[in-house]
Amino acid sequence: MSLNSIFQYFIPKDKKFFPLFEKDSANLISLGEKLVEALNTEDLTRRKELFKDIEDLEHTGDEITHQIHLELSKNFITPFDREDIHRLASALDDIADYIHGSASRIDLYQVTEITPPIKELASLILQACQDLNKAIHELRDLKNVRIIADSCVRINSIENQADYVFDKAVSELFMYEKDAVKLIKYKEILSALEDATDMCEDAANVLESILVKNA
Amino acid sequence: MSLNSIFQYFIPKDKKFFPLFEKDSANLISLGEKLVEALNTEDLTRRKELFKDIEDLEHTGDEITHQIHLELSKNFITPFDREDIHRLASALDDIADYIHGSASRIDLYQVTEITPPIKELASLILQACQDLNKAIHELRDLKNVRIIADSCVRINSIENQADYVFDKAVSELFMYEKDAVKLIKYKEILSALEDATDMCEDAANVLESILVKNA
Amino acid sequence: MSLNSIFQYFIPKDKKFFPLFEKDSANLISLGEKLVEALNTEDLTRRKELFKDIEDLEHTGDEITHQIHLELSKNFITPFDREDIHRLASALDDIADYIHGSASRIDLYQVTEITPPIKELASLILQACQDLNKAIHELRDLKNVRIIADSCVRINSIENQADYVFDKAVSELFMYEKDAVKLIKYKEILSALEDATDMCEDAANVLESILVKNA
Repeated sequence: MSLNSIFQYFIPKDKKFFPLFEKDSANLISLGEKLVEALNTEDLTRRKELFKDIEDLEHTGDEITHQIHLELSKNFITPFDREDIHRLASALDDIADYIHGSASRIDLYQVTEITPPIKELASLILQACQDLNKAIHELRDLKNVRIIADSCVRINSIENQADYVFDKAVSELFMYEKDAVKLIKYKEILSALEDATDMCEDAANVLESILVKNA
Repeated sequence: MSLNSIFQYFIPKDKKFFPLFEKDSANLISLGEKLVEALNTEDLTRRKELFKDIEDLEHTGDEITHQIHLELSKNFITPFDREDIHRLASALDDIADYIHGSASRIDLYQVTEITPPIKELASLILQACQDLNKAIHELRDLKNVRIIADSCVRINSIENQADYVFDKAVSELFMYEKDAVKLIKYKEILSALEDATDMCEDAANVLESILVKNA
Repeated sequence: MSLNSIFQYFIPKDKKFFPLFEKDSANLISLGEKLVEALNTEDLTRRKELFKDIEDLEHTGDEITHQIHLELSKNFITPFDREDIHRLASALDDIADYIHGSASRIDLYQVTEITPPIKELASLILQACQDLNKAIHELRDLKNVRIIADSCVRINSIENQADYVFDKAVSELFMYEKDAVKLIKYKEILSALEDATDMCEDAANVLESILVKNA
């Protein structure tokens, strides 16, 4: 039992960290939605606009991360272990960075043909962000521990699917793509998308450890 | 002196963490042995079977890691610092992941010609896993601190050798491999193998810090 | 307020960690200077000598990191949080590794034509190291908190510039470099240089968190 779990019976409900984490994970859903929309439209002007939205949402995420770190420095007592707050904030920040990084590579490398595995990975990222948001909303009172645990299991399974999609796509590039420069471009984009699902799994791991310690 | 080192005189000998770490590092030796065997046989059917064994052993490793995290959440008093237990478990898990990742890339990219530097790196990984296992067995009573220290020194030297093998192999690819797609394939495989030795060094660093704090 | 900040009024001024961090960050400036000089000379023999100097300075950095870890293990009371000392030492060590890694790739891949973005990135790394050194010198008494904060803001901006230089250079490689092997070589070198500025940002983040906790 941690010091925090002893203290939490005496202190008023946290009004600082939970709202920030909820805001942060809602922002990730928006990022995931914009990414899926951008990669499924054929309209290149619209795609460009959506990439700009993703850039703005990534900045919003940066500000929320900064606020969480600020609250962490100002508050001695936190609703769960300090290192878990720090790890969760960093994990959510990394997800936003990788979603943004994937979009900006596609834009910068002037890749206009969006292949099926790229779309699949984007859809998996969005699903994982939705599950993260659902789990984070249950952190407040930990009454529905089952919902958090189920979300984490699903995120782990999503990451496994993403691994499979990535590995299959890269091995197909090696088999069929004779233009090495194009191969590298696509490999880089697939890799950034797959990394985003790894970051979702990292966040789920933090949630699981919070669960076991506090529930 | 850490709180744990004060406490350890009053608590019964740990029966939870040491057996799990010993099991985990023995599992890494098996992974290393299967890898070396797979990359030294010319029989492609046998190699495929060994890759399957590696996949199974990686799952075994995942379960052990999970058990260590579970014990960490349940126990307030631990045989050495909580963050070092966490770091050691994660480092061992990463080694298993990279061994498995190397094998699965070779399989997936349909690389059948195993070059000398690939075999050398696999052999270095196995040596590092054997040294880790030896050091971890000495953690229980810390009577033979010298054995742990020597293993860590050897692992650091193994990692340096792996760096050298990797750098040399990649620069030779750049010089002699005119097929860029093939070059990328081999570079990816060499890189996964070299990363595995980096992870062994990370684990050795954790062991060294446990040593200095508790011996 | 951390335990350390309570203790620090009762303990003599730290004479161990501050001198080591100052030495470590001064060593990073030397590494940055050698890198800039190596990449701006046309004299290949002189460049080779400078690469050798970089290797030696990287070893010096390793020794300083080792000493910091040793002091950390021996001292129960530290001038700021133990985990921040550990994180700062690791971040500075990573910077040295990436500067050395960039130089050694250029050497090993026999890349003799140093392009403008490579020079720009080297110059950005040097600037970030100078700012880190300036900030670390102010850690001792925390009287000029503004100087630390300003350095951190500049390092963040330097990292953003490096991102931009890297992304632009890679997308230009994709557009104009038809030799895939050459493209991969340059991408690897640019990537190692850009990673070095990421590591500078990590170090700045640690400094910022020390600031908020202790100032």
